[in-house]
Amino acid sequence: MEAVIGVLTVSDRASRGEYEDVSGKAIIEYLKEVIKTPFRIEYRVIPDERELIEDTLKELSDDLGCSLILTTGGTGPAPRDVTPEATEAVCEKILPGFGELMRKVSLEQVPTAILSRQTAGVRGSCLIVNLPGKPQSIRLCLNAVFPAVPYCIDLIGGAFIDTHEDKVKSFRPGSR
Amino acid sequence: MEAVIGVLTVSDRASRGEYEDVSGKAIIEYLKEVIKTPFRIEYRVIPDERELIEDTLKELSDDLGCSLILTTGGTGPAPRDVTPEATEAVCEKILPGFGELMRKVSLEQVPTAILSRQTAGVRGSCLIVNLPGKPQSIRLCLNAVFPAVPYCIDLIGGAFIDTHEDKVKSFRPGSR
Amino acid sequence: MEAVIGVLTVSDRASRGEYEDVSGKAIIEYLKEVIKTPFRIEYRVIPDERELIEDTLKELSDDLGCSLILTTGGTGPAPRDVTPEATEAVCEKILPGFGELMRKVSLEQVPTAILSRQTAGVRGSCLIVNLPGKPQSIRLCLNAVFPAVPYCIDLIGGAFIDTHEDKVKSFRPGSR
Repeated sequence: MEAVIGVLTVSDRASRGEYEDVSGKAIIEYLKEVIKTPFRIEYRVIPDERELIEDTLKELSDDLGCSLILTTGGTGPAPRDVTPEATEAVCEKILPGFGELMRKVSLEQVPTAILSRQTAGVRGSCLIVNLPGKPQSIRLCLNAVFPAVPYCIDLIGGAFIDTHEDKVKSFRPGSR
Repeated sequence: MEAVIGVLTVSDRASRGEYEDVSGKAIIEYLKEVIKTPFRIEYRVIPDERELIEDTLKELSDDLGCSLILTTGGTGPAPRDVTPEATEAVCEKILPGFGELMRKVSLEQVPTAILSRQTAGVRGSCLIVNLPGKPQSIRLCLNAVFPAVPYCIDLIGGAFIDTHEDKVKSFRPGSR
Repeated sequence: MEAVIGVLTVSDRASRGEYEDVSGKAIIEYLKEVIKTPFRIEYRVIPDERELIEDTLKELSDDLGCSLILTTGGTGPAPRDVTPEATEAVCEKILPGFGELMRKVSLEQVPTAILSRQTAGVRGSCLIVNLPGKPQSIRLCLNAVFPAVPYCIDLIGGAFIDTHEDKVKSFRPGSR
């Protein structure tokens, strides 16, 4: 059975077509590179509107059956940055370890990593993870957290996902 | 005066007697090993029911006078994992540093440590700390946070607890 | 244009004049040492009363136009420690990365750093950061987070602040 993965770019300017969505594309490229089990992507680009972000997260998880949604953009301290708020509003459980680890690895690159409010959470059988906006930071964060993603999706009853071991060594306790 | 310490195992299967509660036993063993001042343990094994966890935490702190409650189990992302929610609901103050540090040391062992939602908080003069489910992870986490536990209990007006220095060097600022 | 920076000491005893406010003074000294652009300080010493802390934070940000408020004191687990609660109550956005990093660097000094509930957040165009109570811990925490402070204030529309590079190398992505 094919897993469904949502890629949600949150950006006023990308949604108006003012520039190319390199961030969403970087996520899609990463997924194609590391996941070896069948999956298809549902891809959206929307502006930084909290209600719209919430509705889109709900649509992707509830209607389209996503087991994983990766968002990019809108996690900073600026007034228009509302992706974490929207994520928290639609999730039943928040997983603070994702944000902590992503900030930690980003902090090794830039001191402004502490300004990111990235989080992750669970809605039904869907894991939602906020990623930063910049392609190279996206890859850094995904490399840090992805080893725990397939097992998390197992635990919440989502689709089975496995990775190419030479790219990302996903970890399932007890199954080694 | 004897300190009272609650050990609360939260597990559907252990509470039905389907397997032995090795986690609760690992906590009790640890406490006996490191604490040198007089204490007695109040030990409970209950299923993953949020209301029951809250009631038991309240009973242990308010009625039985626990200065410390260590829980094990129910901190993951699965639907039945509700220990952190119950802990947050009964605590007046949340201490995020405990969860951060426990995830950090666990992450050095397994990448799935970021899935743990372990937290800690204060209810009256009782410190409540969520521990993971596996005995070896319990020990790892306790070794990380226990040096700060006696002083924390001092600050909230709980019982005096001291540790064997060769096991855990508990730290009281200003008193060295 | 001169930036306005609030320094808020929260301490029952310092506010009653029972001892000198060395913490607030340490913050002021630090600011004078590292900031090279024009600024003036609004300095307050108040007791650990949540409502008063909230009102003072609002006055400093809304009425006096502070782009940055640094608080000291009241971040521990004791009943009178309510600075983080007051901070969260007046902020529209919480920036968990500040507390995580400050606890991390403090933890390298003392194991009781995990007891600190320090946080940071944004109110309008003002960044509010909770610092610890002890002068040497204040400096440690400021050194850790200050490189990200000027850019954060840019993002929320506060005053332009720049630092002496040999003291604190503030980071503005894209502007190097």
